[in-house]
Amino acid sequence: MSIAEQSLQMHYEKKGKIEVISTVPVKDKNDLSLAYTPGVAQPCLEIQKDVNKSYELTRRWNMCLVVTDGSAVLGLGDIGPEAGMPVMEGKCVLFKEFGSVDAFPLCIKSKNVDEIVKTIYLISGSFGGVNLEDISAPRCFEIEEKLKEICDIPIFHDDQHGTAIITLAGLMNALKVVRKQKEDIKIVINGAGAAAISITKLLLNYGVRNITLCDRTGAVYEGRQAGMNPVKEEIAKITNLDKKSGRLENVIKGADVFIGVSSPGAMTTEMVKTMADKSIIFACANPVPEIFPEDAKLGGAAVIATGRSDFPNQINNVLAFPGVFRGAFDVRAKEINEEMKIAAAKAIAGLVSDSELNPEYVIPAAFDPRVGKAVADSVAQAAKDTGVARI
Amino acid sequence: MSIAEQSLQMHYEKKGKIEVISTVPVKDKNDLSLAYTPGVAQPCLEIQKDVNKSYELTRRWNMCLVVTDGSAVLGLGDIGPEAGMPVMEGKCVLFKEFGSVDAFPLCIKSKNVDEIVKTIYLISGSFGGVNLEDISAPRCFEIEEKLKEICDIPIFHDDQHGTAIITLAGLMNALKVVRKQKEDIKIVINGAGAAAISITKLLLNYGVRNITLCDRTGAVYEGRQAGMNPVKEEIAKITNLDKKSGRLENVIKGADVFIGVSSPGAMTTEMVKTMADKSIIFACANPVPEIFPEDAKLGGAAVIATGRSDFPNQINNVLAFPGVFRGAFDVRAKEINEEMKIAAAKAIAGLVSDSELNPEYVIPAAFDPRVGKAVADSVAQAAKDTGVARI
Repeated sequence: MSIAEQSLQMHYEKKGKIEVISTVPVKDKNDLSLAYTPGVAQPCLEIQKDVNKSYELTRRWNMCLVVTDGSAVLGLGDIGPEAGMPVMEGKCVLFKEFGSVDAFPLCIKSKNVDEIVKTIYLISGSFGGVNLEDISAPRCFEIEEKLKEICDIPIFHDDQHGTAIITLAGLMNALKVVRKQKEDIKIVINGAGAAAISITKLLLNYGVRNITLCDRTGAVYEGRQAGMNPVKEEIAKITNLDKKSGRLENVIKGADVFIGVSSPGAMTTEMVKTMADKSIIFACANPVPEIFPEDAKLGGAAVIATGRSDFPNQINNVLAFPGVFRGAFDVRAKEINEEMKIAAAKAIAGLVSDSELNPEYVIPAAFDPRVGKAVADSVAQAAKDTGVARI
Repeated sequence: MSIAEQSLQMHYEKKGKIEVISTVPVKDKNDLSLAYTPGVAQPCLEIQKDVNKSYELTRRWNMCLVVTDGSAVLGLGDIGPEAGMPVMEGKCVLFKEFGSVDAFPLCIKSKNVDEIVKTIYLISGSFGGVNLEDISAPRCFEIEEKLKEICDIPIFHDDQHGTAIITLAGLMNALKVVRKQKEDIKIVINGAGAAAISITKLLLNYGVRNITLCDRTGAVYEGRQAGMNPVKEEIAKITNLDKKSGRLENVIKGADVFIGVSSPGAMTTEMVKTMADKSIIFACANPVPEIFPEDAKLGGAAVIATGRSDFPNQINNVLAFPGVFRGAFDVRAKEINEEMKIAAAKAIAGLVSDSELNPEYVIPAAFDPRVGKAVADSVAQAAKDTGVARI
């Protein structure tokens, strides 16, 4: 049976991948009077007096909302809210397994930005944080931005920031392998969607200086007329400062790093050959990458990463989001800021020791048991250092 | 330590009474590829083709939303959304323990009917049913009504319908004890809030003919001017057909049944003495009833029930809602209609055998292990009989 068939069969057998259980016994009248009426009035009154007590007297401290509108599910596109739920449940499973975070999946029957924002805001008092998932660009930017303005809990769009964190982690170690400095390198990012924008911002915040984005129209530059949107216009102000134009095969010439968050086959061996010496290729399209590792190697690439588990150096978000939320929750952070994301990337990169580091091992494995805690500790510290920790 | 203190301590220790766990293993790459990408795409596609598959491939079939706006929490009033959460979590615990229903608590930061309706509607694709909880009247009626119109899953306001079901169950057996027929009795319900209205409607649907509601202004009758609202005006058309007026002490004279869903001490021994022979008293105000059992007995009451666990015949909603949702979920009912509620009441009453039946045992105990399944089976059958079962 194929993976798809096996997975379908498992889903039919399990009838859902999450379950809500009780942490307290209810075996007799006394149990009932403590967990429910009349005793439960007391914790209610405590929270009424001080709403922060909701983090101590209910599960809020550890509860993450995983929410989608079903508009950009995996590579399947807009398949509708209910159809996105197997992915949301899967995400909740990973939150629990890799970060000991309770996560609950919701799908929203609307594609309207303001309706989605309002819905999430109105239920945000039930959660410690919100993980936006599989919402199409550019709405995902607007939704995240608006929610950050009105909510006092972390809002994190994993498709953007999770990917950005792992990419940065991988890049940190890849640069060590090729002995280049972040300030000196030229990066080309193929794609200008949610992940590309977040990667760009995080890399710039980390100290990378020269990044050019490329979309189907070609290099994104300030003043370009075709195929722009407000997000691209904003990013054009801080990238491609030389205002290069033209398609990927031109833009990629002389670049040190290629990061693909685009589509299968977008990169070729010939194009890799035109890059700078000791080039780095992150081909993240999944399951079929922009270029397969063997083809990138033929072009002379020194370090290659993909989104796949059957090649070395897998860019897998599961390395980031469970620990990021674990760390944010541990210090009751009110947001997940750029410093916390960079701290997460450093923690992930730091798990590969200098003696182990090699072109085929710049990113720890998805099941490396050290990852969750390392990321959480690092993120929690960064939250404290930047003044967003509340405990 | 008092119950309140013990409960508070337990809540601080447990830090939340629910937990979200995984039903699938994620111990290696293969597990991950089935529970998450790439395998998970297959169940997503199946649901995209047929949205009903969401009941087979995700936890929706068993997932109940427990939702409040925090406006009428226990007897505490409007304490705010977050402060209502200990009760909501407690309710979820009871759903699981007594009905094997997964339930998840949400609080909504709004008191606006349309905002609440919209929020619940937009997330309703994630759930098999919705249990409204602790929402103040008359908004609770409007919210329930509007949700029923637009949602294709059961919407159930437990404060109304759960209470009505148990009251009817108790009344069925109490009438057996006193050998009176439902068609012949006069009932006075003290209170005209959410529970009173639902009890009235259910009793009328069951075949009771003569019911009068009493509020602070006195008997509710059609055309009354003071202290009315649209819900009372509607109920006045089908109750108190003699248009009696006056306060409870007048209206109660000659009544066979007193049902109190009002406030402590509203009923007196003297008033019980004016009732018909072999009177039935359900004094449900909690924790202090409208009249204590010993005082009702002094007045000549034949059967007495309260909301308390330390007296015989406890009217406790936990007898109803877990089994009601279990039954509705088992046949994927699209609603919980009056027939299903009456079926639930019959199932609960039926657990007290004729040989066991006596004035101090008309309602089974909250922890009677037979209740959940009996209610579920009966409710599921009624759903089938009334054409609202979808499987």
